[in-house]
Amino acid sequence: MALQQHRARVVVVGGGFGGLQVVRKLRRAAVEITLIDRQNFHLFQPLAYQVATGALSAAEIASPLRVIFKRQRNVRVLLAEATGFDLERRHVLVGRLPNDEDAATVDYDLLVVAGGSRYSYFGHDDWQRFAPELKSLDGALEIRSRILSAFEAAEVEQDVERRQAWLTFVVVGAGPTGVEMAGQIAELARDTLRRDFRAVDTRASRVLLLETADRVLTAFPPSLSKKAANALERLGVTPLVGHTLVDVAYDSVVVQTPIGAQQRIPARTVVWAAGVTGSALAAKLAAAAGADVDNAGRVTVGPQLALAGHPEVFAIGDMVRVRDSGGEILPLPGLAPVAMQEGRYVARVIRARLRGKDSPPFRYVDKGNLATIGRSKAVADVKGVHLSGFLAWITWLVVHLFYLIGFQNRLLVLLRWTFSYVTRGRGARLITVPPDIADEERTHDEPRKLTCA
Amino acid sequence: MALQQHRARVVVVGGGFGGLQVVRKLRRAAVEITLIDRQNFHLFQPLAYQVATGALSAAEIASPLRVIFKRQRNVRVLLAEATGFDLERRHVLVGRLPNDEDAATVDYDLLVVAGGSRYSYFGHDDWQRFAPELKSLDGALEIRSRILSAFEAAEVEQDVERRQAWLTFVVVGAGPTGVEMAGQIAELARDTLRRDFRAVDTRASRVLLLETADRVLTAFPPSLSKKAANALERLGVTPLVGHTLVDVAYDSVVVQTPIGAQQRIPARTVVWAAGVTGSALAAKLAAAAGADVDNAGRVTVGPQLALAGHPEVFAIGDMVRVRDSGGEILPLPGLAPVAMQEGRYVARVIRARLRGKDSPPFRYVDKGNLATIGRSKAVADVKGVHLSGFLAWITWLVVHLFYLIGFQNRLLVLLRWTFSYVTRGRGARLITVPPDIADEERTHDEPRKLTCA
Repeated sequence: MALQQHRARVVVVGGGFGGLQVVRKLRRAAVEITLIDRQNFHLFQPLAYQVATGALSAAEIASPLRVIFKRQRNVRVLLAEATGFDLERRHVLVGRLPNDEDAATVDYDLLVVAGGSRYSYFGHDDWQRFAPELKSLDGALEIRSRILSAFEAAEVEQDVERRQAWLTFVVVGAGPTGVEMAGQIAELARDTLRRDFRAVDTRASRVLLLETADRVLTAFPPSLSKKAANALERLGVTPLVGHTLVDVAYDSVVVQTPIGAQQRIPARTVVWAAGVTGSALAAKLAAAAGADVDNAGRVTVGPQLALAGHPEVFAIGDMVRVRDSGGEILPLPGLAPVAMQEGRYVARVIRARLRGKDSPPFRYVDKGNLATIGRSKAVADVKGVHLSGFLAWITWLVVHLFYLIGFQNRLLVLLRWTFSYVTRGRGARLITVPPDIADEERTHDEPRKLTCA
Repeated sequence: MALQQHRARVVVVGGGFGGLQVVRKLRRAAVEITLIDRQNFHLFQPLAYQVATGALSAAEIASPLRVIFKRQRNVRVLLAEATGFDLERRHVLVGRLPNDEDAATVDYDLLVVAGGSRYSYFGHDDWQRFAPELKSLDGALEIRSRILSAFEAAEVEQDVERRQAWLTFVVVGAGPTGVEMAGQIAELARDTLRRDFRAVDTRASRVLLLETADRVLTAFPPSLSKKAANALERLGVTPLVGHTLVDVAYDSVVVQTPIGAQQRIPARTVVWAAGVTGSALAAKLAAAAGADVDNAGRVTVGPQLALAGHPEVFAIGDMVRVRDSGGEILPLPGLAPVAMQEGRYVARVIRARLRGKDSPPFRYVDKGNLATIGRSKAVADVKGVHLSGFLAWITWLVVHLFYLIGFQNRLLVLLRWTFSYVTRGRGARLITVPPDIADEERTHDEPRKLTCA
């Protein structure tokens, strides 16, 4: 492909783990980069569950994109939502601009789309209302408000069954996020909140971890799944493996048990951490190229992570599946390290192209897999070496602090973790999102007299 | 008044500065306390303006009420909104409970209402939409999103006049909050954001501080007002004293100048920090007692801070005016120290009553007045000693850290302030609230091509 005489215009859509690496690794290249994101910050999504349980505050895991690239003068940041792609005219369509203009186009010579993924509700988008997800900061803050409000509700609820429904928390999906979330809710109920309430014993809470597969953490070796399940149970989580969610309502879930029976479980708080699907940008990009997405909503890219027939259009991260030169799909998990390696790779391909050179195909280097369960408990699978317990937990802490962006945030998070470890407290327990329960779903009782318990 | 045989039931409405002191100072009294608040946290409102400018994150100035009173076993916290008072039956009506019940009543033997104040829009409640206020955490987070979005808008705006409107910030009211807010916006524009944008020069921002009176900080001596005005001007703020706001729209304000002329100033961001009025609870309490509120929306209490004819009903803080035994209104400013002293006083009165003793009337001890303007700049009036500059600023820092609740928050805030001082950065610059501009007010241009500046 012939690059124009002017400095090549590289447009990167998405400031997640992949997008950031592309931009960073082009810092010395003779290109003009436009980074488009609909939010003004990069979210360190692996710690979103800690915001959802009040262990960290939102700003501590979110770094403004303009701060990250303050000193990188060949990039400009555009706060807008990419709404489509015109691969013929080589421009990205963006929706409403910050100054209220309706739309604009951004021309590119090279395009990198890194839109990430979102949770799929298995075709039941109506479930989202009752079961918010953990991918976004908004979702995490809503979950935080719901969990904390449920304990407040239990404190004033006098009916025993209804109280237990307020104290029942269902986490759907036992991947790393679901496991971490369930563990945190259990710790919150058993440790943090234990002495904060007067009428209710928060230790009576039930945390159910629903998983369709026959074990938790299916991406890990079975022996570590077993250790994780045991650690979860000791924390007070009930892993329900082989259980499939059939329905969610405002006050209960219906699950299908391993023997095929359906069971309704009264529960007022449901957290969604199951099944991801490619960002809507994947479908838009595929459509622009006359292609389709796969059943996980991902667009297919070739060995150099570019679209077939469009070597100038790259796509990376959770929203893609990679087909190697032999036509095989590479088995890449939807994890930050994959997106980061893909981002660095695409930056290398672009730098090579600017020098008229070709690049070898993308290869993923698996550095291991980590999941934390709770205080001093984690599992790690590092190149076949299996770790669990305290050592795995310290590894998890160090890795997450290392990848968190910004020295200030690292220090603040380390400080909060130290406090939480010592005091078993959680410093950011704010209810900030008002409950969203439709009026027809509310119980209508006579005003009652609240008496001291 | 004859107290019942059971432990006296004390109901405190409002977990602000005054309410917290009442509860704390009753920790060893033989009473059962119910603290009712519609939010689950105490907000350190004097630092809300730092959340509004991204210097601090929300959780750092908000402490969960249950954490504050974890170890005080004679208090229970009820997360609900007080909606009315029945002084005959001696109960407080509360609205929707956390478990979705519609309403309830809470009986009291002794009642303390500490509802605080809110900003008054001088009868123009429709202005609130364009000019959010700084009393609440929601307001602070909305202002943060608006200020940061305005710079984003300026970055993509190509029309010179419209760009200047995005870069014009109007702060209404030059009390301590308005002065602090204007100073922070100026520092944000001049220092923090200077190198973050590519197309726009944020130093071209204008920060207008509107004040109807003839000087800023009218609660301070004129010499300190003068020093504050000079410091503000050096920071890049334009104090417009003797200017009265006449109208606010989505894209401009109209002010009446000292010579009586009306002037329209294009400005996309307006922050409200003028004119407070008693909380809605003041009017409800007054109505329950068959009394009226004054023109600042405050209920009148006697020398012991109790309602006339109701020695068992106290009201404190910004929502009251105090009439001494001679019938004179005490000249008390609407500040946290007043509310705190009133709270401690009421706790003393209650403890004395439980022992059958009477109490001397409330007396306010004025410990001084502090306002910060910006980096190393503040004014202080401490018992007639006037301080300004660095020494006043350090005093301000120490006092605010001291009154902030919780060791963890003190440490986190100190850390953020140190970072901001050294790097001139602001760590919590997140746009989290979507802009609320009605469609008919938006500009409708043809999609344009965004080019690198």
